[in-house]
Amino acid sequence: MRPVVGVFAATPDRGRALARDMAVRWALAEVLVAHDLRLLSFAQIKTAEHKARQPFGQIPTFETVGVTLFESGAIVLHIAENHAGLLPAGPAGRARAIAWMFAAVSTVEPVIVEREVAVLLEGDKPWTRERLPGLEARLRQRLDDLAVWLDRKDWLEGDFSAADIMMICVLRRPAAALLMGDYPQLAAYVARGEARPAFQAAFAEQKARFEAAHG
Amino acid sequence: MRPVVGVFAATPDRGRALARDMAVRWALAEVLVAHDLRLLSFAQIKTAEHKARQPFGQIPTFETVGVTLFESGAIVLHIAENHAGLLPAGPAGRARAIAWMFAAVSTVEPVIVEREVAVLLEGDKPWTRERLPGLEARLRQRLDDLAVWLDRKDWLEGDFSAADIMMICVLRRPAAALLMGDYPQLAAYVARGEARPAFQAAFAEQKARFEAAHG
Repeated sequence: MRPVVGVFAATPDRGRALARDMAVRWALAEVLVAHDLRLLSFAQIKTAEHKARQPFGQIPTFETVGVTLFESGAIVLHIAENHAGLLPAGPAGRARAIAWMFAAVSTVEPVIVEREVAVLLEGDKPWTRERLPGLEARLRQRLDDLAVWLDRKDWLEGDFSAADIMMICVLRRPAAALLMGDYPQLAAYVARGEARPAFQAAFAEQKARFEAAHG
Repeated sequence: MRPVVGVFAATPDRGRALARDMAVRWALAEVLVAHDLRLLSFAQIKTAEHKARQPFGQIPTFETVGVTLFESGAIVLHIAENHAGLLPAGPAGRARAIAWMFAAVSTVEPVIVEREVAVLLEGDKPWTRERLPGLEARLRQRLDDLAVWLDRKDWLEGDFSAADIMMICVLRRPAAALLMGDYPQLAAYVARGEARPAFQAAFAEQKARFEAAHG
């Protein structure tokens, strides 16, 4: 059975691969595992049927032999544990890579999402313009620390790993991407990830889907 | 070598065990592993010395033979992988528990933190009162979904696991705790966790530290 990845049928990002399934499809491409897609509408992800697979009504989902998973970090870790090449071989390096996977989604991503949500949900409110500098300052704290860590490193922990997939997908989000001009180390890190053939393949797949749907 | 857990020297929560080291100390107590503490001031966590252990200048840290880790989710997972009792035995159950660990820190916790930060950082701003209903509605979406999942379950995935440690620590945060009156299933779930002897031991340890420091 090929694994099945649940994704948005119509990408809200217009083919820029910013939805959270990108990390999963990129990881699968790195380990050369073919997959099928479960295409989901915005209405479908809120149904009880979908919530049986993803309790919070989100994407991605991952269905494979014997188990259905949710949370992109957990799915990428599952793929990395079952296929060589995405985690360091030794237990210490492996644990460090997992620490960075958690850091990507629970320490770096939330301040990026909060900055984005301020505009998406409250962009028409009178206070949003006044709030943005504070939100950006909190986001820059994370990027400052990450840039220090990545100074003179190609990847977060030795060789390319699942941690880099998670962190680069987070840094590609619009609110972080906007600031990359001030962080040349981080911009180069993201570019290194995007240059990988597996990233390119995963990107092209969803881009083709977007273009087929929108002519 | 006993593992060393980096924690705040002075708990900002006045002994309520709301800092992120609680999940780590609770997990250690569940598997009966004694530990030492590295007590850190708010100034110390922002130093280069601490950031070599925790790149974002946070707590907790976890130092054990051959590796230093950060991110409470990653540390609890590391403990669970090295000691029996905190993860399901089979690979499918194990992967599901890890999915819930990621869900706790990247899907549930961020909306709780955002609600808390609105008051902590912007409580004096004229817009905060108007923003709070929207923030609470987004938090309730997560709690609604979690309550559906936990209906007639004692724990997230079969037996008690590392996933419950992470999720219960997240639900104990003030912005979620405030709403527990509307979620009897979640309140009972948190109470089941708090009733465990390992939780009690980990709670008492930091409570005693707070009381020793403040008479």
